[in-house]
Amino acid sequence: MNIIPLSMEQEIAGRVSRIAGELSARGMDAILLSDFANLYYTSGRVFCGYAYITATGEVTYFVKRPIGLEGDNVAYIRKPEQIAEMLGAGKMPGCIALEMGRSSFNEIERLKKVFPCAQVVDGTPVMNSVRAVKSEFEISKLKTCGIHHETAYGNIKKVYREGMTDIELQIEIERILRSEGCLGQFRIAGDTMELFMGNLLCGYNAETPSPYDFAMGGGGLDESLPVGCNGSLIRPGNTVMVDMCGNFNGYMTDMTRVFRIGEIGELARKAHSLSITIHHRLATMAKPGVEAKALYEEAMKIVKDAGLEEYFMGLKQKAGFIGHGVGIEVNELPVIAPRSRDVLQAGNVIALEPKFVIPQVGAVGIENTYVVRDSGLECLTNFPEEIQELY
Amino acid sequence: MNIIPLSMEQEIAGRVSRIAGELSARGMDAILLSDFANLYYTSGRVFCGYAYITATGEVTYFVKRPIGLEGDNVAYIRKPEQIAEMLGAGKMPGCIALEMGRSSFNEIERLKKVFPCAQVVDGTPVMNSVRAVKSEFEISKLKTCGIHHETAYGNIKKVYREGMTDIELQIEIERILRSEGCLGQFRIAGDTMELFMGNLLCGYNAETPSPYDFAMGGGGLDESLPVGCNGSLIRPGNTVMVDMCGNFNGYMTDMTRVFRIGEIGELARKAHSLSITIHHRLATMAKPGVEAKALYEEAMKIVKDAGLEEYFMGLKQKAGFIGHGVGIEVNELPVIAPRSRDVLQAGNVIALEPKFVIPQVGAVGIENTYVVRDSGLECLTNFPEEIQELY
Repeated sequence: MNIIPLSMEQEIAGRVSRIAGELSARGMDAILLSDFANLYYTSGRVFCGYAYITATGEVTYFVKRPIGLEGDNVAYIRKPEQIAEMLGAGKMPGCIALEMGRSSFNEIERLKKVFPCAQVVDGTPVMNSVRAVKSEFEISKLKTCGIHHETAYGNIKKVYREGMTDIELQIEIERILRSEGCLGQFRIAGDTMELFMGNLLCGYNAETPSPYDFAMGGGGLDESLPVGCNGSLIRPGNTVMVDMCGNFNGYMTDMTRVFRIGEIGELARKAHSLSITIHHRLATMAKPGVEAKALYEEAMKIVKDAGLEEYFMGLKQKAGFIGHGVGIEVNELPVIAPRSRDVLQAGNVIALEPKFVIPQVGAVGIENTYVVRDSGLECLTNFPEEIQELY
Repeated sequence: MNIIPLSMEQEIAGRVSRIAGELSARGMDAILLSDFANLYYTSGRVFCGYAYITATGEVTYFVKRPIGLEGDNVAYIRKPEQIAEMLGAGKMPGCIALEMGRSSFNEIERLKKVFPCAQVVDGTPVMNSVRAVKSEFEISKLKTCGIHHETAYGNIKKVYREGMTDIELQIEIERILRSEGCLGQFRIAGDTMELFMGNLLCGYNAETPSPYDFAMGGGGLDESLPVGCNGSLIRPGNTVMVDMCGNFNGYMTDMTRVFRIGEIGELARKAHSLSITIHHRLATMAKPGVEAKALYEEAMKIVKDAGLEEYFMGLKQKAGFIGHGVGIEVNELPVIAPRSRDVLQAGNVIALEPKFVIPQVGAVGIENTYVVRDSGLECLTNFPEEIQELY
């Protein structure tokens, strides 16, 4: 099969061109990629090997596996050392960018030797910044995710049965998502995050801090994966926050909604409403040129004015952000955090998740995925935002 | 909560002592770990931070998240640079081992600066070799996994319905596994492997090569995760190979079984029987002191003698191994491959998976997880090995 289907060719050409422009602007001659998310971005499929992209806009795919990929720019290799001979002495870069923020130290040291005369620099920021601005093709993939995500969430109430534990409900939601076409895979950049198909938090468990840098925590079922469901019964007076995987096609939307059993009290209702208020406020404020940290500051101002700061983004341990870029991975740029240096650009896709943890009740607040447009945010996850009763 | 529950203290002390011994033997003064699998191994839980272990057997846990962990050897930090000041000038190592095969280049460069006067060496092999020999405590966790894994596989026939696609069956098996307590998380070392909760291969799809270094492939449902189910109907004459996640407690067993619809023909039956024959032969041959590559060679000899080489370990693209260590991660040492330098040790836990792909029929062969004992292999995955009919 051809490594890039004809329908994808123009899209990939656009991405490669943007990477080439970024390389040029930074004085880099070429970038060598091996991370799956970056290979998928630059070829439209995951393979084992390397994508080599020059500042002049040429791309070569050095493939180890699978066999059978075809294309003018496909070259099969067994090991990266062959890349140098295949490029030829006349085409070796003077300055090569490598994925120093993603590949292991040993892998980078090995790749450095492939380019013995080159200056070696970190290409991670190049890819992160290019990928942060989505094309309309990518946005259409994300829209598709949003539609499936909404359909799946619409079935959550149907699978709830009285007396369920949190994990029992999560397993049924996993099945709903998978049956709707969710690939399950939850791609996260970096080594300090892991999660199985999303997080469902019920009642008191929402107060338990986790090792991970997610917005919310939970104790988990096992010390080997201490996040999310802890096996507790869903009781009257509890909220159930559902924040589960929206990866339906290699891209993913991020959406959180809250359900309840019985009455959850005024504080929880007020905090949930405030989350929706924050979304509405940020949706008009977030435009190209606005600093990401300004969104965080605005959200914090609304929270403080309402006197709900102590519950915001966790109780004992607080998350340090209220939103993040999302696309192929769940933690892309821009980061909506107080010390973020990111500035919003048209085509950024961001998940906003101003959330609260209410003692004894559970987590409240919503998360939506938005595209940054010239006029503000366009929502990709259109599902009722109010707390719904499970019965 | 205490970072190490009392019941785990002795077990962790044993692991730390073995790491210390290995550091001593290699002339290293200390090792600094941050990979989740290694943190889990050395503390009994996943946290965000570092475990610092000296050749004299002292361990300190430098914790970033979650808040609330307690213990004499727990120190909270915000960033790794604080480790140096907390150790104190008199206790800085002369030679420090870092996880150069796991952590990113940028992370290692940052950690190097924490120990500016130290010789920095790769500690990845230290941890890989220590973790390859399981304690009886670890083996008991793996036995528990095996029992749950068997129970779950025993329910597969109950969820099959005529006219199902491969992914529809996989989703039902995922639910069975999760309901049996499977954590879902499929831990794999390295950046070149990914899989969602295991692989189910039906019929012709088993012939499609994947980018990943698994024993079997499959086309997958999407170019972003090209492995496993491709959505095809399960038809009479097909085999269905089920190789799904056995992680029930942070450790995981690896088990493959084959089901069929209708008649699959003599060749497929013969190849499946040969896989069982190979298991029985290797189960008596695999003892401490035996070279891992000798197991591979013996398996290849049996396959060649039977004239089934062309179908062995894939058709178009062949896997280069027939087994691998398994424990916290699915690709631990020893590797059962032709150029493996590993020698079996008592307490190794290995998954053997001599498998065949039969054209038009599908994949056959079994996989079991075994402990290497002085007398040979002890099986942890005791489920009927013959091909079972789905009806």
